[in-house]
Amino acid sequence: MEMISIGQYDLIYNAFSFTFATMMAATLFFWFGRSQVGDAYKTAMTVTGLVTAIAAYHYLRIAQSWEEAHVITNGVVTASLIGFNDAYRYVDWFLTVPLLLVELILVMGLSRQETTSKAIRLGLLAALMVGLGYPGEIAISASERWLWGGLSMIPFLWIVYELFVGLSRSVDQQPESARGLVKAAIWVTVLSWSFYPVVFFAGAVGLEGTTALTVVQVGYTIADLIAKAAFGVLIFMIAVRKTEADMLSSPNMGRAQAA
Amino acid sequence: MEMISIGQYDLIYNAFSFTFATMMAATLFFWFGRSQVGDAYKTAMTVTGLVTAIAAYHYLRIAQSWEEAHVITNGVVTASLIGFNDAYRYVDWFLTVPLLLVELILVMGLSRQETTSKAIRLGLLAALMVGLGYPGEIAISASERWLWGGLSMIPFLWIVYELFVGLSRSVDQQPESARGLVKAAIWVTVLSWSFYPVVFFAGAVGLEGTTALTVVQVGYTIADLIAKAAFGVLIFMIAVRKTEADMLSSPNMGRAQAA
Repeated sequence: MEMISIGQYDLIYNAFSFTFATMMAATLFFWFGRSQVGDAYKTAMTVTGLVTAIAAYHYLRIAQSWEEAHVITNGVVTASLIGFNDAYRYVDWFLTVPLLLVELILVMGLSRQETTSKAIRLGLLAALMVGLGYPGEIAISASERWLWGGLSMIPFLWIVYELFVGLSRSVDQQPESARGLVKAAIWVTVLSWSFYPVVFFAGAVGLEGTTALTVVQVGYTIADLIAKAAFGVLIFMIAVRKTEADMLSSPNMGRAQAA
Repeated sequence: MEMISIGQYDLIYNAFSFTFATMMAATLFFWFGRSQVGDAYKTAMTVTGLVTAIAAYHYLRIAQSWEEAHVITNGVVTASLIGFNDAYRYVDWFLTVPLLLVELILVMGLSRQETTSKAIRLGLLAALMVGLGYPGEIAISASERWLWGGLSMIPFLWIVYELFVGLSRSVDQQPESARGLVKAAIWVTVLSWSFYPVVFFAGAVGLEGTTALTVVQVGYTIADLIAKAAFGVLIFMIAVRKTEADMLSSPNMGRAQAA
């Protein structure tokens, strides 16, 4: 088996370490931000920080597993006897991807009934999407990768439909100062999530060996940073603007809608 | 002795790691949620987070013990010289299962006297239930497993009786907005706890070897996630709704009942 170069090894390791640091920093930013938003948005900020906290844990584990899976001797990389545990990513996504949709629904401040029904439906679709992707990720043949990847696209497209069509009326009801940001958050979700299948299928369209490995590892890392940390900043900005709008329209509204 | 496959090893390890991450995330969610509920329910939220925090600690230990108990060489799993410490589960349950019942009693907001007497009685029954199960878990013969498992069912059935009959009057006194959720919490307790004996007796009814091991480890993990994290979300939702109901009926009632 062709081994990765020391340059590729370092690039991937440093990308993992960078992402751990960014996710931890994002977590603290979101949890400090909790005290700056109205009661109605505190749960959204809690969940936003949980997503990056869970991702930070998994990037720490991924970086450790990456180190344990390789032996470096005089700048030459060889495989150790312990395999690299790539499943950490899927374990992470299984937990965080549903929560990302919950963040968005919570910050939109829908009715309690709509919040519950949309959170459950979108959460289950997201878990299904991730669950169907994993057999494809560990598949050896390209055809299996296409099969599971294709199946995983069904819940993904359903989520896209729900975000653009199912939420459109609720988007129009957002205060004007936050409406553009809510639309941006929906677009960031769809575009950053679209990046995952591109990386996923890179392994099925001729990209091979160590280049494919590097593209997959660094690609997923960049996608995670945008989908979780950058997306979370948008959620915080929306919560701040909606808090301001609530205070202008009725000083007690934030309290009444709590959680 | 038949050794588990690398796929089974990884599935179990990833289930442990997933559960550690979920329990930590749940803990932080519950402790942040403390600031969103009335004074009367803050102790319930503290305890809810303690349960998942204790579970997170034990899952971290279980995952470490699992790693230490095995040696992976080129994708083949062999036993190391150190045994897998399964007792972490019982140590965890001995502490967390009584606390789960305390959570439920605290969030129901009974009189101080009833809270104390029910918490002590149910807590002792739960500790007895776990304590009687352990000799069966480590028993080698199926008959011993049946014996201790059967004895453990006596306090379990007593708890079920207390939840459905002993608490029924108190359930009817809950504010209407929270009553359905309190009933759901009782049902989640009984159903998720019923899953443990099913897993327990899987080892006594013919399921053998590595399949039994995988079913037991993953089964207990799923049961813990439902009984502790999902149950805790219900407790939080009950606390939020009761806080709102208290504020509507009397703005100071939440404060007056503070534990």
